[in-house]
Amino acid sequence: MSAQHKLEQGLSRQGPLCIGLDPDPAKLPALLHGEPASFLIEIVAATADLASAFKINMAFFEALGREGLQALERVRQAIPPSALLIWDARRGDIENTNRHHARSAFEVWNADAVTVHPYLGIEPLAPFFDYLDRLTFVLCATSEGSTLQDLRIAGSDEPVWSWVAREVARTSRGQCGLVVGATRPAQLRAVRKLAPALPLLVPGVGAQGGDIPAQPALVNVSRAVLYASSDSDFATAARRAAESLRDRCMSATSGVGQAAAPD
Amino acid sequence: MSAQHKLEQGLSRQGPLCIGLDPDPAKLPALLHGEPASFLIEIVAATADLASAFKINMAFFEALGREGLQALERVRQAIPPSALLIWDARRGDIENTNRHHARSAFEVWNADAVTVHPYLGIEPLAPFFDYLDRLTFVLCATSEGSTLQDLRIAGSDEPVWSWVAREVARTSRGQCGLVVGATRPAQLRAVRKLAPALPLLVPGVGAQGGDIPAQPALVNVSRAVLYASSDSDFATAARRAAESLRDRCMSATSGVGQAAAPD
Repeated sequence: MSAQHKLEQGLSRQGPLCIGLDPDPAKLPALLHGEPASFLIEIVAATADLASAFKINMAFFEALGREGLQALERVRQAIPPSALLIWDARRGDIENTNRHHARSAFEVWNADAVTVHPYLGIEPLAPFFDYLDRLTFVLCATSEGSTLQDLRIAGSDEPVWSWVAREVARTSRGQCGLVVGATRPAQLRAVRKLAPALPLLVPGVGAQGGDIPAQPALVNVSRAVLYASSDSDFATAARRAAESLRDRCMSATSGVGQAAAPD
Repeated sequence: MSAQHKLEQGLSRQGPLCIGLDPDPAKLPALLHGEPASFLIEIVAATADLASAFKINMAFFEALGREGLQALERVRQAIPPSALLIWDARRGDIENTNRHHARSAFEVWNADAVTVHPYLGIEPLAPFFDYLDRLTFVLCATSEGSTLQDLRIAGSDEPVWSWVAREVARTSRGQCGLVVGATRPAQLRAVRKLAPALPLLVPGVGAQGGDIPAQPALVNVSRAVLYASSDSDFATAARRAAESLRDRCMSATSGVGQAAAPD
């Protein structure tokens, strides 16, 4: 099933919630002795019917070395095939290297979607975009760190994030998306206008203080669900947090299923 | 030994050559049956006295899956401890995630240096900069993909790459560097003026058509050395290519050892 179809089905069935899997050994419930795989597998099982996507934050797994990548292989198996699997790796290089990054995302990890950096412009991202049945989410206006993104371009006075949104919208043939932080509601509204057909991935809700966006989008929550309780009831607490966030997303954004799906 | 000290010693002893390790199974000499570790270990052995740094292009290893990471562990052992090990991973995220990226680069892989993206601005890169005895090379003006980097900022008319160079120079306490492509000699000269104390990592020489820079810098060559011959003489050919490039670097840049070392 294509990533586009999965996203569309997920948004209409489960709603816009995406659960971010960021295993931080220091925050795991004590009874798990810092073992991330079992923890995340329980989280996935407890929330699978509430989330249309799971987002793997590669940095957290890579920081655990070989053990982290083995844990990731186990967690990957536990994610239901109907959920959109987002490989949040934030890669980006010259075109020749991006070919290898795209292979890593879409073939080695068999992810449905990947996140990428636009600092080298949009053209070198072509090897990601060549996977027409997957989704490549380009960082646009992030939940933190806006100094470069907010620079205004001489002549048009357009901010850099807006330039990125327009360039990606112009390039997309249904395989591109944008990352816009929940902490930046004005940018979220503007991007929705600039790129109405593109799916948005919106992190920053919860621990980062962002509000549930009023615009249709895939809303990522990581810490607020994963670490809802540090006790043995962590899975139940995660489910409760996810349910409440899903309900708030659903009431904030009406008609999500239709509007947020790519064309 | 600190990365700064290694760089200084390497530049004065071996000169400015950095050899990029980008294992592309399709290009390996046939006799190696696509086995990247033995290939790279022979390349490192044949060139170690000519290079002050080795740059690991993570994408190429990650694209080979678990086998690629096992190969990387072997290759890593083969790099002499006196050479600067650059983990060319081009990471970059919010601060909380960058903590894990920095741990991955500097603790899991024990690299001397890492490359990072500035699209989230300079502040969220703090977890990398906290490692004062390592080097964090921020992408500035890359060898390919300049559309975003060349945007001019309203008011000052300064290009984005120049803004990045200034911000990084302002932040550095000896632990920052900049990546500037050899295909962009004008930018290279300008960055050298904006950030005279910062070490520069200059890729794009060789396959990408860039010239040896006339400014002191760490000059990376990947394909032109690795794939100098696809036959059984690949190691000798790599050494010959590296030697010729090293000599051209040495004659192009006089006084490299002093000027390119961080203060």
